[in-house]
Amino acid sequence: MRFSQLLIPTLKEDPAEAEIISHKLLLRAGFIRKLTSGTYTYLPLGLAAIKKVEQIVREEMNRAGAQEILMPMVQPASLWEESGRWDVYGKELLRFTDRNGRNSCLGPTHEEVITDLVRMNVQSYKELPLNLYQIQTKYRDEARPRFGLMRGREFIMKDAYSFDATDKEAEQSYHKMNQAYHRIFERCGLRFRAVEADSGAIGGSFSHEFMVLADTGEDTIVTCKNCQYAANMEKATCVPASKSKDEPQELTKIETPGKRKVKVVCEFLDIEPRQLVKTLIYIVNDKPVAVLLRGDHEVEEVKLANILGVSDEDLRMADDKEVYDATGTPTGYLGPIGLEIQVVADTEVATMVNFAVGANDKNYHVVNCNMGRDFTPTMTGDVRKVTDNDRCILCGGDLVLTKGIEVGHIFKLGTKYSASMNATFLDAKSQEQPFIMGCYGIGVSRIVAAAIEQNFDKDGMIFPIPIAPVQVLILNLGLKDTEITEAANTIYADLLKKGIEVILDDRDERPGVKFKDADLIGIPFRVTVGKNFNKDGSIEIRTRANGDVTTTTFADSVAEITTMVEKGLNQ
Amino acid sequence: MRFSQLLIPTLKEDPAEAEIISHKLLLRAGFIRKLTSGTYTYLPLGLAAIKKVEQIVREEMNRAGAQEILMPMVQPASLWEESGRWDVYGKELLRFTDRNGRNSCLGPTHEEVITDLVRMNVQSYKELPLNLYQIQTKYRDEARPRFGLMRGREFIMKDAYSFDATDKEAEQSYHKMNQAYHRIFERCGLRFRAVEADSGAIGGSFSHEFMVLADTGEDTIVTCKNCQYAANMEKATCVPASKSKDEPQELTKIETPGKRKVKVVCEFLDIEPRQLVKTLIYIVNDKPVAVLLRGDHEVEEVKLANILGVSDEDLRMADDKEVYDATGTPTGYLGPIGLEIQVVADTEVATMVNFAVGANDKNYHVVNCNMGRDFTPTMTGDVRKVTDNDRCILCGGDLVLTKGIEVGHIFKLGTKYSASMNATFLDAKSQEQPFIMGCYGIGVSRIVAAAIEQNFDKDGMIFPIPIAPVQVLILNLGLKDTEITEAANTIYADLLKKGIEVILDDRDERPGVKFKDADLIGIPFRVTVGKNFNKDGSIEIRTRANGDVTTTTFADSVAEITTMVEKGLNQ
Repeated sequence: MRFSQLLIPTLKEDPAEAEIISHKLLLRAGFIRKLTSGTYTYLPLGLAAIKKVEQIVREEMNRAGAQEILMPMVQPASLWEESGRWDVYGKELLRFTDRNGRNSCLGPTHEEVITDLVRMNVQSYKELPLNLYQIQTKYRDEARPRFGLMRGREFIMKDAYSFDATDKEAEQSYHKMNQAYHRIFERCGLRFRAVEADSGAIGGSFSHEFMVLADTGEDTIVTCKNCQYAANMEKATCVPASKSKDEPQELTKIETPGKRKVKVVCEFLDIEPRQLVKTLIYIVNDKPVAVLLRGDHEVEEVKLANILGVSDEDLRMADDKEVYDATGTPTGYLGPIGLEIQVVADTEVATMVNFAVGANDKNYHVVNCNMGRDFTPTMTGDVRKVTDNDRCILCGGDLVLTKGIEVGHIFKLGTKYSASMNATFLDAKSQEQPFIMGCYGIGVSRIVAAAIEQNFDKDGMIFPIPIAPVQVLILNLGLKDTEITEAANTIYADLLKKGIEVILDDRDERPGVKFKDADLIGIPFRVTVGKNFNKDGSIEIRTRANGDVTTTTFADSVAEITTMVEKGLNQ
Repeated sequence: MRFSQLLIPTLKEDPAEAEIISHKLLLRAGFIRKLTSGTYTYLPLGLAAIKKVEQIVREEMNRAGAQEILMPMVQPASLWEESGRWDVYGKELLRFTDRNGRNSCLGPTHEEVITDLVRMNVQSYKELPLNLYQIQTKYRDEARPRFGLMRGREFIMKDAYSFDATDKEAEQSYHKMNQAYHRIFERCGLRFRAVEADSGAIGGSFSHEFMVLADTGEDTIVTCKNCQYAANMEKATCVPASKSKDEPQELTKIETPGKRKVKVVCEFLDIEPRQLVKTLIYIVNDKPVAVLLRGDHEVEEVKLANILGVSDEDLRMADDKEVYDATGTPTGYLGPIGLEIQVVADTEVATMVNFAVGANDKNYHVVNCNMGRDFTPTMTGDVRKVTDNDRCILCGGDLVLTKGIEVGHIFKLGTKYSASMNATFLDAKSQEQPFIMGCYGIGVSRIVAAAIEQNFDKDGMIFPIPIAPVQVLILNLGLKDTEITEAANTIYADLLKKGIEVILDDRDERPGVKFKDADLIGIPFRVTVGKNFNKDGSIEIRTRANGDVTTTTFADSVAEITTMVEKGLNQ
């Protein structure tokens, strides 16, 4: 392909609409263009990168025995009513009525459609296991689409669904997908971690997320320095502190005028935040719930929702008025003693002795409070975020917090959909049984964004070789010089013959512009044919990732480039 | 791939929902399943055939210098308002409002989006020509979706759009696409014709349709026996008859009690239908228009709409009451004499002398009517369908009418969209000029259906080799026989190694079931390893298209099959 004929509208400045690096670079490098908030056109280079990812995903899914199909994007409401999700799925589900008055939606995911397909077409355990996948544009009507390809309304997903006869076989299917996912992200050339994850609203028994590691990631991953333990923050647990051996002291009320924040109260009382228990009020499905937490800890709302048996969308922090209405005390002086609403204590609180709490009286706190003696919570459980002071639940090793971008998620669904939609098969004894299901997603377009978040510098993108739009970019720096042009054209043609993917920058532009664009679009190998070629016949091959420069001759150039590309692809 | 592990839910009976052969066979062979009216899931074999077509399309589009991109499926109303199509496009355009109240639609075509993209990103004539295409699922909310993949609501299209600086260059772009389309349908292994077509509602200056020839086609193609002339019925013209030399006779009113139909009136008057002119009343945008036509001819409504300067959706035949309200005469006795509404005479009528017409008086006709003397139409023009009695407009040769299925359509759009949407570039003199556009569609999923309509027999589909889901199907007819199974498995593995696409039917089914399914799914080459292999070591290769059987040995089988496949692919 010749740069002069390609639509690669690079920009000199960061576009105002972009906040994160991948979004800025995808726009600047002419990979995508916005149509509306959260929807983008993939231009030739952007689509080429996506096709690379798709192909890797397809090969590994096929290798794992999954079969590619393609389901409609518009889905009938009736199936979502069967599964029970029509009413509970939020506004992300774009609902509409077609010309014949049928309620429909744009598919954000396809559990209902695939369950319907399989219940209509698979009768016997002999036809199992079955794993069906598709690569398709999905639609989620996000309230605030942002971050370019990271959280758009339209995005390309690979979604797979497995159907098994027994729980054991379903776990084998899950395991196969887990392995396939590892191969996929390895082949994409990404640094990633598979972490235990919460199953969330999609339901099911267990799940793993695949996280591309990047400082700019929105998610926090908890890993152990010592063992293989890895979980996302919503799911991560740690060794609880052992129960303090201190003797309980006498409860004492102390005037703390105007001291409301943890830090201020602790300074005033001359204690550490770890010696204080804070009382937070949540509104859970319109009812107030108090949450007790060590002063230096934070609530993990997904854990809190799980312990309360609700969705994390059903709870939120109360505002000052709601706090006062629920407790009769202004924010800042709340405590568990005498509180008449539901009280959830974090596990850690149960290990503390002689801690400070609010006195439920404006301008007062109490010290030497003890759970069991001074108050009894409605329930106790792990509702906090793990910190890097915590220890691994598996081996006691140090935990580390890292940032990541979720690019894949696998779920063991069990019978959530097959039971509600009455999708059954006949087992060996001719008994009807619900299929045991799993579902497995990969954000194909998001992988491209995540790869950029993980690999960039001040000059532009640095694509991993396997998912770069093309592998080589040749700069012809002497468009009016016959020798240079002939050499560049010959290398271009010879590389194409060898099956190397290559763009020839034959634009009538200054060398500075060509170098800048080359760095920006991040093609792994840049080949320069310029003044030096006239001088001493030398051609320069630069590796984008590390800036290494190899000087070669015209005669050796094609072999040299081919070797570098092949080595890079097989890393 | 092993048949036992693939989702190929073949059916023994024709499904009640299917009317045409491709729809029946696609369902029976387990290629597709219906989700809702007009939307289908492509199962593994169906998707495999579609991917074959996609790949041929992609290769030929790239070869023609077009660049692949991908635009969003959801489009903002604002762009359609700019082009003026928001109000005029029918209910096929599925309109909805997103959660933020923005009017949107599901893309049935992408002229607006691409014009917007190009006006934002292309400034200079130096960046032209530009041809951008995508392969994507489109949505048209058809009133009565039917015929399976032939006229669905969701379907896979390749749509391309060219942008040029001058009319001459635009015609070169059009010509390139015309050539690419010929290569695409040839490579798909289809018998087809490119025909002149009406530009219709999409607008523009000229267009061609690509028709797969099939007796079951909905469209009629007019071709010349003698020269290259080919047009669809909506566009086809012919040599008009020469003016009759007969002397005009005296107009005579004749009582024709109860004689209303052309055939009955002609018998009663003892004349041929070619000696009578019928008067038909159309309602065009709520107003009545009379159309005069030779008795044995039929109205071509697209031609009529064009001559009246309206869309063919704006006109329809009047019912009996409307006829009476407009003319004061009951249907059956209408004639042009004294008629006070707009009258359109077909060109052929102008060549006739002494013809019969209705008298505008119940139970009466008149004979020896002559145009010019007895009445003057508002306008005269070609508004009829060509027949196989007509002669070629180019060479005077005999015309032939054939049935076809439209699978591609190319349009020279001109500035229809660039002018209304103010999409301009700077020409060599730095003057703003609107882009000259073309658009080029291929119905990817429809090609698969059309290929079946063209190639089937009573037993099932007969896929052209280049677009068959796979090339070879091996039947293991001795699943419990170690020797047979080993031979089948070895051939299977060796063919895969050679890059031949192959399915091994390893199901625990009777030979009869396997033979029946093999015929049904129409894989080009069927390899049978059964009893004869035990008897004399022979293996049978059957070509689905002609039923030819080649007997070979185990040792020669792989080489033999490979040769047959390669020969078939290169035909």
